[in-house]
Amino acid sequence: MKKQFAIIGLGRFGGSVAETLHAKGYEVLAIDKNPNHVQDIARFVTHVIEADSTDENALQEIGIRNFDVVVVAIGEDIQASIMTTLLLKELGVAKVVVKAQNNLHGKVLEKIGADKVVYPERDMGTRLVHSLISPNILEYVELSKDHSIIEITANRFFANHTLLDLDFRVRFGCSVMAIKNQGELIIAPPATYEIREGDLLFVIGNNKDLKKLQEQAYPEDE
Amino acid sequence: MKKQFAIIGLGRFGGSVAETLHAKGYEVLAIDKNPNHVQDIARFVTHVIEADSTDENALQEIGIRNFDVVVVAIGEDIQASIMTTLLLKELGVAKVVVKAQNNLHGKVLEKIGADKVVYPERDMGTRLVHSLISPNILEYVELSKDHSIIEITANRFFANHTLLDLDFRVRFGCSVMAIKNQGELIIAPPATYEIREGDLLFVIGNNKDLKKLQEQAYPEDE
Amino acid sequence: MKKQFAIIGLGRFGGSVAETLHAKGYEVLAIDKNPNHVQDIARFVTHVIEADSTDENALQEIGIRNFDVVVVAIGEDIQASIMTTLLLKELGVAKVVVKAQNNLHGKVLEKIGADKVVYPERDMGTRLVHSLISPNILEYVELSKDHSIIEITANRFFANHTLLDLDFRVRFGCSVMAIKNQGELIIAPPATYEIREGDLLFVIGNNKDLKKLQEQAYPEDE
Amino acid sequence: MKKQFAIIGLGRFGGSVAETLHAKGYEVLAIDKNPNHVQDIARFVTHVIEADSTDENALQEIGIRNFDVVVVAIGEDIQASIMTTLLLKELGVAKVVVKAQNNLHGKVLEKIGADKVVYPERDMGTRLVHSLISPNILEYVELSKDHSIIEITANRFFANHTLLDLDFRVRFGCSVMAIKNQGELIIAPPATYEIREGDLLFVIGNNKDLKKLQEQAYPEDE
Amino acid sequence: MKKQFAIIGLGRFGGSVAETLHAKGYEVLAIDKNPNHVQDIARFVTHVIEADSTDENALQEIGIRNFDVVVVAIGEDIQASIMTTLLLKELGVAKVVVKAQNNLHGKVLEKIGADKVVYPERDMGTRLVHSLISPNILEYVELSKDHSIIEITANRFFANHTLLDLDFRVRFGCSVMAIKNQGELIIAPPATYEIREGDLLFVIGNNKDLKKLQEQAYPEDE
Amino acid sequence: MKKQFAIIGLGRFGGSVAETLHAKGYEVLAIDKNPNHVQDIARFVTHVIEADSTDENALQEIGIRNFDVVVVAIGEDIQASIMTTLLLKELGVAKVVVKAQNNLHGKVLEKIGADKVVYPERDMGTRLVHSLISPNILEYVELSKDHSIIEITANRFFANHTLLDLDFRVRFGCSVMAIKNQGELIIAPPATYEIREGDLLFVIGNNKDLKKLQEQAYPEDE
Amino acid sequence: MKKQFAIIGLGRFGGSVAETLHAKGYEVLAIDKNPNHVQDIARFVTHVIEADSTDENALQEIGIRNFDVVVVAIGEDIQASIMTTLLLKELGVAKVVVKAQNNLHGKVLEKIGADKVVYPERDMGTRLVHSLISPNILEYVELSKDHSIIEITANRFFANHTLLDLDFRVRFGCSVMAIKNQGELIIAPPATYEIREGDLLFVIGNNKDLKKLQEQAYPEDE
Amino acid sequence: MKKQFAIIGLGRFGGSVAETLHAKGYEVLAIDKNPNHVQDIARFVTHVIEADSTDENALQEIGIRNFDVVVVAIGEDIQASIMTTLLLKELGVAKVVVKAQNNLHGKVLEKIGADKVVYPERDMGTRLVHSLISPNILEYVELSKDHSIIEITANRFFANHTLLDLDFRVRFGCSVMAIKNQGELIIAPPATYEIREGDLLFVIGNNKDLKKLQEQAYPEDE
Repeated sequence: MKKQFAIIGLGRFGGSVAETLHAKGYEVLAIDKNPNHVQDIARFVTHVIEADSTDENALQEIGIRNFDVVVVAIGEDIQASIMTTLLLKELGVAKVVVKAQNNLHGKVLEKIGADKVVYPERDMGTRLVHSLISPNILEYVELSKDHSIIEITANRFFANHTLLDLDFRVRFGCSVMAIKNQGELIIAPPATYEIREGDLLFVIGNNKDLKKLQEQAYPEDE
Repeated sequence: MKKQFAIIGLGRFGGSVAETLHAKGYEVLAIDKNPNHVQDIARFVTHVIEADSTDENALQEIGIRNFDVVVVAIGEDIQASIMTTLLLKELGVAKVVVKAQNNLHGKVLEKIGADKVVYPERDMGTRLVHSLISPNILEYVELSKDHSIIEITANRFFANHTLLDLDFRVRFGCSVMAIKNQGELIIAPPATYEIREGDLLFVIGNNKDLKKLQEQAYPEDE
Repeated sequence: MKKQFAIIGLGRFGGSVAETLHAKGYEVLAIDKNPNHVQDIARFVTHVIEADSTDENALQEIGIRNFDVVVVAIGEDIQASIMTTLLLKELGVAKVVVKAQNNLHGKVLEKIGADKVVYPERDMGTRLVHSLISPNILEYVELSKDHSIIEITANRFFANHTLLDLDFRVRFGCSVMAIKNQGELIIAPPATYEIREGDLLFVIGNNKDLKKLQEQAYPEDE
Repeated sequence: MKKQFAIIGLGRFGGSVAETLHAKGYEVLAIDKNPNHVQDIARFVTHVIEADSTDENALQEIGIRNFDVVVVAIGEDIQASIMTTLLLKELGVAKVVVKAQNNLHGKVLEKIGADKVVYPERDMGTRLVHSLISPNILEYVELSKDHSIIEITANRFFANHTLLDLDFRVRFGCSVMAIKNQGELIIAPPATYEIREGDLLFVIGNNKDLKKLQEQAYPEDE
Repeated sequence: MKKQFAIIGLGRFGGSVAETLHAKGYEVLAIDKNPNHVQDIARFVTHVIEADSTDENALQEIGIRNFDVVVVAIGEDIQASIMTTLLLKELGVAKVVVKAQNNLHGKVLEKIGADKVVYPERDMGTRLVHSLISPNILEYVELSKDHSIIEITANRFFANHTLLDLDFRVRFGCSVMAIKNQGELIIAPPATYEIREGDLLFVIGNNKDLKKLQEQAYPEDE
Repeated sequence: MKKQFAIIGLGRFGGSVAETLHAKGYEVLAIDKNPNHVQDIARFVTHVIEADSTDENALQEIGIRNFDVVVVAIGEDIQASIMTTLLLKELGVAKVVVKAQNNLHGKVLEKIGADKVVYPERDMGTRLVHSLISPNILEYVELSKDHSIIEITANRFFANHTLLDLDFRVRFGCSVMAIKNQGELIIAPPATYEIREGDLLFVIGNNKDLKKLQEQAYPEDE
Repeated sequence: MKKQFAIIGLGRFGGSVAETLHAKGYEVLAIDKNPNHVQDIARFVTHVIEADSTDENALQEIGIRNFDVVVVAIGEDIQASIMTTLLLKELGVAKVVVKAQNNLHGKVLEKIGADKVVYPERDMGTRLVHSLISPNILEYVELSKDHSIIEITANRFFANHTLLDLDFRVRFGCSVMAIKNQGELIIAPPATYEIREGDLLFVIGNNKDLKKLQEQAYPEDE
Repeated sequence: MKKQFAIIGLGRFGGSVAETLHAKGYEVLAIDKNPNHVQDIARFVTHVIEADSTDENALQEIGIRNFDVVVVAIGEDIQASIMTTLLLKELGVAKVVVKAQNNLHGKVLEKIGADKVVYPERDMGTRLVHSLISPNILEYVELSKDHSIIEITANRFFANHTLLDLDFRVRFGCSVMAIKNQGELIIAPPATYEIREGDLLFVIGNNKDLKKLQEQAYPEDE
């Protein structure tokens, strides 16, 4: 049987979690004490309940312990976030994922038993920075403290050269894992592939090497 | 010269953008009309100003047009977000990146000239869903509509096998781009590498193939 | 078929638009989210609906796209004014006339597609000024940057003289288009018409000439 | 000496009155109890005072009785509007012009001695209606209950015809007082003037006749 | 037929008027827009209506013009007091008595047609002062600028003396109109009446004479 | 030495007490915790202090125990009224006069030691009733449960008659104590005095007799 | 018949009183005007009523005078606490126990007839202090100004000694009334009892002697 | 050196803790973010600081880790109570005692490291119950689930009897530990002591036995 999810708190973050899960075909119960939020989400999710998640009785009536994962996405009310999390663990919910507003909030959540604490606004801020600094890096994934994958747009520097031509590995110390050409993805492209301007290159490597590549290919950045 | 950034709105998202840019060595001017926000950020960023970004004179006095990129990260006040964005473009700011609360807000921003519109809470909601559905997928990057990179933890299914052994490419139709073993990253690992339980595998491939891999390796998921 | 109008926002301005249109025999749908406004207008207009114009569904249920003209007369809430205007254009309304509070608001409205932007309070302020400066000028219409029509009351300066007598055209460089005598209007009055004290004169001409006329006829003004 | 004006209440309407008078070279004292309004107007008007107009002492210190005209443009606070008006008359101000919100408010103002009561929002609503009903009528001035002046754009109906050709007076019962051609105004145009598409015609006449003209020239209206 | 009264505004003052009239056997209609006030008074008055007295329709439905006297005892809301008063006079109520908060308010009420304006708090303050200054003066009525009636308690100064004895008229210039002895009132007491300690004397006279009497009889006052 | 008064609470009632005492030449200290009230009264009273009367230290610093009488005229805040009264008695103030809002409030005040409790709004309501019922009774003073003094205007019933003529005492059972003729007061008028229309008569008597007089003289009342 | 109690005010203190009484088998009526409080307590107490205790009618309908004891545990609203207490005594309730917030409040309550005034927060604060100062004193009861009972944990100082051994009475001047050993209580323990580490000793004595004991036994305290 | 205490939150409970500690000669630092509370306590405690205890920097500047015990007595704001507690433990405070509002709050506090959690209102509620049920029991201390000490007033049942007479131990199964006679305490009174009416008896025993004693001595209770 598919996992069952409950989402408590239906603001922009919680609402997005609920809609996406529902769109992927999962059973989702969306819970909020604000009737406006409940009404808004009702177009996108089948099961919605108006309830106060800090009320133990309300949670029991919902049968919250039968859900595999409960996401606590309460926006501003730190107290409600903490109380709800504690109640969920006391009631025996197996996995409780909680959105924190700041480090102190996060620490409290961990101490009272939250299985996972997430910081969406802070993380998105960090992510946006990469695209601000280097607009040519479309996507950026940190693999380790020193290694990353980046997605870059091929400009004139790359255009009409093969990977062989460019002597990529030797010159930049990193490797092209995949190339997207006009919407089609070529995984582990052959060295003879001739890059076109506008191709998207997925490059893996050491951060220093990736930076060197970037400086040579996009001198206008920074 | 390095790019110069101004961040308007210093809530959790805007604050995180400002701090991260500053930590990376960029010049950042942080602006908010709320003195509490200004005071909070002042520990992390060198230049902070308390100003109302919907006041054209205030923006001119700041010399806002000299900044390469201005990020409008105003939280709740949609009107202020719209007015600020229009003023920034009227004043000639080259690149204005704006946080939107919902699609309608985003459309208005685009029509009045925002260069980039971002939806951090919604995007983070979508991202969280992957880890909720498949806890074994630690990281997930969408390359195209059909292809992705996933980061998975090697369990007993993989342990003590080489890639050759597992006949990875043939059996699952996707390829292992990198392996992280005890903090060390091996890019494009050789087929003879013997996987240890707990290794992190970065796998690239078609979404259907990746799903198949996941179903066989982690039957307990879903 | 007569044009059909919808008026969104039933404050003093919007209410006046709705009542006047209804009094002239047009079909008018009056819309406001404030039940008090809805109740007040219901005595004067036949079709009134309490609805939130920033809710796309509500607008669709009303069938807003079938109206020839929609006037957005929302008073204080600039955000609602902008969102409503965008929705109306997205839904395909042919002509959207919007009340703006200030220039910045007006610019946003134009950029998102408003067909006409009006500034009633500002315009009325300008109009009042004419009657404040020259109480003898009862009405004032700007024809071009340099030309106007003014309505003045004939005082002793004019009384018991014919236009011929006064050598109007030559002496003042402007011409009397019409005269209202005891409620009756004489268009293009003959040069032999003898002006009575209290007659209303409609004079057309260059602003400088009109000013000269005014200074001679009403030396007490200014 | 030029008249001196004081404007009490610096919202959109009062602010517009103050700015326009100042732009025309008059001495204007702008008064409001809201420091934000005072600050906003200070860019446009030289004399601005933050004061409560319902405080008799404050009015006396300002020397309000020395002003020729005082405009009470207080927006929402009907009580303050009434009290201010009474105080101004008690203090001997010669002419007090007051903005009313509704008929009842207007009646009180008249009873306590206001010299002129204006209803800007209501009047502007009425004016907008003309342009809504007949978009081809750019300007509309009511001369009497039965007569008006309208400004219309010459379309194909008029183009390349002389007034003689069109037999204007006879056919429509009204007369063309002036024509604006490419920004230049021709007063009392000769019958041989050949109208160009886009010319602006200022027509005076009986309302019925003007309506007939409009129906023939712009059958698509209504 | 007995007079019929309507009382608008049921605070402490208005409530007291309504209850007293009802206790005296008059028909009273009590009106307030605050349901709490309506509920409180309902125990003491037979006809109570919850209505907004600034709504002309509401007043008409009540049939307000049929009442002989309408008392407007609205407490804090000066605007409502003014609007209600104007409406009552417009609707033809014969006698409108209104409670004013201060002189300015009172002047407005008179100008818009109030038949009588009362200042209960101010008047009661004035009355209290007499008993504060001279605790021996139990009651005080101003007959003219120079004459008053006072009610005083007979102390040892008066006790066991007849009016003749005291040579009242000659010595103090004022006369004892009545004496209350043990609850019984003797009007125009004979000169031979022997005053007992504790008798209440009602004395009429010139203020200066009354003061002299007081100073001699109660030297401890002041 | 003259008595010294302190007034706590400077609303309409307390303000009136303070002003009247000051006008009569007494030392008055006016106290309120609301700076607006303090500012308003400062024009009329010499000693004004902004202080919280429920703060024992504040009262001691003022030296409140040195005042002969303290009037607690606190308007709406019953708790503050009670606490202040208790503190004043604890601090040894000789006479504390307190305004009560209702009977329950009054009972508490008496139990905690208030020397006098007054109900100004209620009393004024009762007083107004007399003039409402009988507009010809200008003033009304209750002497006992059964006897009163009334002030009436002489109409045609009395005009041009002497008291003898009217056989006042016999016919109505009450006596005329004084007559005011054109501003001059005649105490104990002779029986031969001829009453003029408009004279003011001060009549003392039994309530039943006074009522009879009133019914015969003013049959239109009631 | 068992006593019947009513508890007015169901905050943390009042709620605890109501629950404990109910748990001990007494009839309890719980009263609060806040529906949330009423709902919360309804799980623990059988009779709960939502009512305003300052409304005399409401109290009479409840039949409040039939209760043996009424506890007024109203939290923040001092006015309501005072009014309720007065009403209860006026209605003839035999015993009224009231929670006071501070001394002034307490004095008012006593003056208006409260039978007992309690200060729970203040008293608990005092109690906590003992355990803060001397963590080894688990319980502390003041018998008189000079004598107390303390409960202490036997540490190594006492362990494996008999009372005889320790020469308790002589050495410390106080006596051990009871000993709790592993949950069992020995009243007036024999002198030969051998104390175990962890035994709880209940010691009675003069405060100075108890302090001396404490200093010798727990030198680390203070 | 004497222990040093910091008290955070200076409401009635925290204020009482701070005052009592200070009165006992300990160093106390009182902290609150509300300037009114800070001002109130400043009369009773020497060191008072206005600071926000959820601000880590503020706590560090105070040098909070140098205090032996910190009492968190924050009244209503559960979030602040939790955050403060966590910060105190993170900063290394040895002993943190926290006031909880309810069980859920208490559980969170324990999980995040509070060394002691107290429930003052609830505990005081429980304590009050004993005196409500048995007014003759002046003090009550629970020694174990089954044993207690009670303080009772000797009534006629005991008066003029010796303990021997009464055969106390045998008849009631409990023993008199001390007797207070006219303020003097006799510990372990001899069996020949003759009890006087009004003596206070401190009795220790099994709860059932104590109840039996009470039923016989005070049959009117219950």
